Amino acid sequence: MGFEPSALPRYARTVAEFEHPAVEDIEVSAVLFALSDPARLDIVRQLAVPGELATCQSVALDMPKSTRSHHLKVLRESGVVLSEPRGRERLLSLRRDDLDSRWPGLLTAVLAEQPVAT
Amino acid sequence: MGFEPSALPRYARTVAEFEHPAVEDIEVSAVLFALSDPARLDIVRQLAVPGELATCQSVALDMPKSTRSHHLKVLRESGVVLSEPRGRERLLSLRRDDLDSRWPGLLTAVLAEQPVAT
Repeated sequence: MGFEPSALPRYARTVAEFEHPAVEDIEVSAVLFALSDPARLDIVRQLAVPGELATCQSVALDMPKSTRSHHLKVLRESGVVLSEPRGRERLLSLRRDDLDSRWPGLLTAVLAEQPVAT
Repeated sequence: MGFEPSALPRYARTVAEFEHPAVEDIEVSAVLFALSDPARLDIVRQLAVPGELATCQSVALDMPKSTRSHHLKVLRESGVVLSEPRGRERLLSLRRDDLDSRWPGLLTAVLAEQPVAT
């Protein structure tokens, strides 16, 4: 991180300590589990819209804050979502390049459901 | 099914009653959850080998029968695996065409992990 955690006020340390797996440590089972929850997949769909900035305060507003925090933790710790400090907020983004480098086309396939032929 | 269940002996009714979702009823959350377990993904990898016939007795031989049955049930009910009666056994196969028609490339992407660049 390039700074000394103990030099930061307490809240800053808390946000700085969020852990993200390195790309080589991302596991497909964790990614698939993270995406297997409809609420989490909705968050991922929101983050997949190009050009939209998302923060922890702007996604999944229909659910209780604790539920949202839990889902964002699962998405973060599985390697699907990056959560970066921006002032007092956290900017959320999809780790699309990282996922594409390990499982090319996976995210695209999950998000691109085909209409059922009738 | 085209036959009268009550006309069959008890064991045949049991196997005939296995349920598989129709392709249009397959849900991505159930598919991703089914694939998110490493043991189930191993079974899927076995079934993905072309030309190999697999039965309930020939996959995942390293786990207790009850565990294997549970995993096969999750794979079947999510729409990932087809289990068809063949005499007194059940032939297992991947529903690759069904999954590809709904989420093109999903199964291929999950099974085709890229080596981590060093």
